[in-house]
Amino acid sequence: MNKTQLLDFKQEALHHLTKELLPFWENRCVDLANGGYLTHFDKDGNDSGEDEKSLIAQTRTVFTFSSAHRAGYGDGRFAAIARHGVDFLLEKMWDNEHGGFYWLMNRKGEVLIDEKIVYGHSFAIYALSEYTLATGDPRGLEYAEKVFDQLQIFAADTHFGGYFEMFHRNWTLKGPGSAGGDRKTLDAHMHLMEAFTTLYEASQKEIHRRTLLEIIDLLTTKIMHPIYGTGIPQFWADWRVAPQIKFDIIWGWDRFSEDGLKSAAEDNTSYGHNVEFAWLLMHALDVLQLPYETQREQLLKSFNHAVAHGIDWEFGGVYVEGSHFGEVYDREKEFWQQAEVLIGMLDAYRVFKNDDYLKAYATTHRFVFDHMIAHEVGEWKPLLTRQGEPIWTHMSHSWKVNYHSVRAMIQSIVRLDKVLALEH
Amino acid sequence: MNKTQLLDFKQEALHHLTKELLPFWENRCVDLANGGYLTHFDKDGNDSGEDEKSLIAQTRTVFTFSSAHRAGYGDGRFAAIARHGVDFLLEKMWDNEHGGFYWLMNRKGEVLIDEKIVYGHSFAIYALSEYTLATGDPRGLEYAEKVFDQLQIFAADTHFGGYFEMFHRNWTLKGPGSAGGDRKTLDAHMHLMEAFTTLYEASQKEIHRRTLLEIIDLLTTKIMHPIYGTGIPQFWADWRVAPQIKFDIIWGWDRFSEDGLKSAAEDNTSYGHNVEFAWLLMHALDVLQLPYETQREQLLKSFNHAVAHGIDWEFGGVYVEGSHFGEVYDREKEFWQQAEVLIGMLDAYRVFKNDDYLKAYATTHRFVFDHMIAHEVGEWKPLLTRQGEPIWTHMSHSWKVNYHSVRAMIQSIVRLDKVLALEH
Repeated sequence: MNKTQLLDFKQEALHHLTKELLPFWENRCVDLANGGYLTHFDKDGNDSGEDEKSLIAQTRTVFTFSSAHRAGYGDGRFAAIARHGVDFLLEKMWDNEHGGFYWLMNRKGEVLIDEKIVYGHSFAIYALSEYTLATGDPRGLEYAEKVFDQLQIFAADTHFGGYFEMFHRNWTLKGPGSAGGDRKTLDAHMHLMEAFTTLYEASQKEIHRRTLLEIIDLLTTKIMHPIYGTGIPQFWADWRVAPQIKFDIIWGWDRFSEDGLKSAAEDNTSYGHNVEFAWLLMHALDVLQLPYETQREQLLKSFNHAVAHGIDWEFGGVYVEGSHFGEVYDREKEFWQQAEVLIGMLDAYRVFKNDDYLKAYATTHRFVFDHMIAHEVGEWKPLLTRQGEPIWTHMSHSWKVNYHSVRAMIQSIVRLDKVLALEH
Repeated sequence: MNKTQLLDFKQEALHHLTKELLPFWENRCVDLANGGYLTHFDKDGNDSGEDEKSLIAQTRTVFTFSSAHRAGYGDGRFAAIARHGVDFLLEKMWDNEHGGFYWLMNRKGEVLIDEKIVYGHSFAIYALSEYTLATGDPRGLEYAEKVFDQLQIFAADTHFGGYFEMFHRNWTLKGPGSAGGDRKTLDAHMHLMEAFTTLYEASQKEIHRRTLLEIIDLLTTKIMHPIYGTGIPQFWADWRVAPQIKFDIIWGWDRFSEDGLKSAAEDNTSYGHNVEFAWLLMHALDVLQLPYETQREQLLKSFNHAVAHGIDWEFGGVYVEGSHFGEVYDREKEFWQQAEVLIGMLDAYRVFKNDDYLKAYATTHRFVFDHMIAHEVGEWKPLLTRQGEPIWTHMSHSWKVNYHSVRAMIQSIVRLDKVLALEH
């Protein structure tokens, strides 16, 4: 690929980030009346009125503005918006009696679901640590560490390792089955790795380094497929693979059959998740100051499986999911997998220098910019057909928001610069 | 065995406890000058002058007086002595900066070894919980819970489960080998089970119940021998059996060869430890209100291995250690194994009604009362030959003190009463 092409990609990304994405959020998400953020917008970017503030959407928006400020955007305005969200998190969403953050509130800040969900707490650690790194306000790291301590005390499984994930308000474990108290997921553990990385970056405490190393080992030896290195979505407490079910508390759009199971409940992996895992792992190694070589085999498996089976070389972009061996089950195009493949494929090319990775980036970049982004509004459409026709069209709700789209642009620009430097 | 015999045993135990043991400690251990307890006494019961106060000896003595008070002895005097020890623990041994208790001080309360050792902290939880149960003073449980939280945050191994055991003052893990940072032991995990049992009894908190259940599962599935059900002393972090080595920080008299290894470093089990584990497990089930039946197989293996291989049917008492299969390596008679076999064999007989258990109790009782106890002084000799001749003769030091001897008498009396009730 020539340098001009890479510069064009960067220019497109920078334009989208600074002229479309960040303005979209800056201009409509700050809730001056009740604090925190509005996070539900229809296809035209109008407030769609859902009366909820979710832990995921609030923390992800804190992350988005903190990371944008830290990356040098916004002339200080984004730091102020991040602070506005942190105020709401600490004053309204934090449970002063039992510790931890509530899962769901209405816009006024009244609790709708008081349960303690580890997935949401991983984003609290991630966002609050990034906020302190970006702004220097010590409250972020203080509460990130409090959340870490709560997870260690209440969520760590001291028999089989890893973390239980679904708790009542007082941190007693929820029941089995769809309540989720007897399961462990790739998703929560991967996002804990991501969270512990930024927590350690901010705190430089040895215990945060040690638990980051522990969860990396756990992910690579128990959660990734022993042969294919691909992510297995759900486990029993003892790390036997569990059939993938729908939980009562949901944070994504995974499609299940009517009985709450996946059609291939025990042989299912997400290409986008695997690539996200790989680049988050590389980032963790950077923060730990360890060489990528220590995880070379895992990284190559993660990236290569996606390139071989997940990339749509005909229409562009990355499919939703398929079997560990390679059969594709779902060829639609969801927003977040595209975002993570953009970042991951640039990292893969930067380090392993295989042109296929850059081609995978390019085809995904084109698909995103030509079909997924609603340029006139500013955000990404959540779900398209394989060919790029919209299926869902709203711009945001509780578990879409801005974390994947904004991060993909900020981090792709950083990586395109690194790749451009290599091409000199 | 007839009822008269059982009544005689009880009478002997009660006499020793109330006329010899408790007076021995009451009359000499309170350090009025510096706070806390004196815990080093020679064969005549005179202060032998070692200028140290250890976390183990201080906490065990708090446990001893608390449990004696709770069992109805001392007319309130023992509660006051326990309080005196708790004051020292909280005011002098607690690390206000990093949390947790220092390992070793001099008599004045100046820190000699500031490391954080999980084995010692298990006794802190055990003693402080028992103290609150005995006296109602909430400080005990408050600090027991603080220690629990510290262990969860810093010591839990979130990859392989269980707890790391050897830390620097700031709770960073010590190095490998004899520093112990890469090992896990039966000893620490068994005493954490004992500690979590009394913590849960005092707090009735769900998290303490859950971690107690987790550590029971861990002990019975990973730490006990898969065939013989006997305890394996040391493991690597991932629960592969590690050769038994001598640590830099020691809390017992295990005998090692000059290279710091046991002569049978990978096939070694302690009869007394196995019986102690079994009765502590029964006690945990009582506190959890679960039937013994849930652990029937484990309990029978623990008790039967000791009866078949560990009890000295010729000279009385229980040997030190041998192979899992059954070969005896060391036929000397150490004090603490005798103490635990007394309690355990009464529990075994009470529940499983096998006369061999009662015979094992009787032969150990006779050996202890006829050879081990220095009746004229008040405490037990620490080590005798197989035949009962003294090898070591001092009455106490940092890791002998009073926990095994006093607990054996208090708990044997309770169990003899239960067995007597069965014989009606």
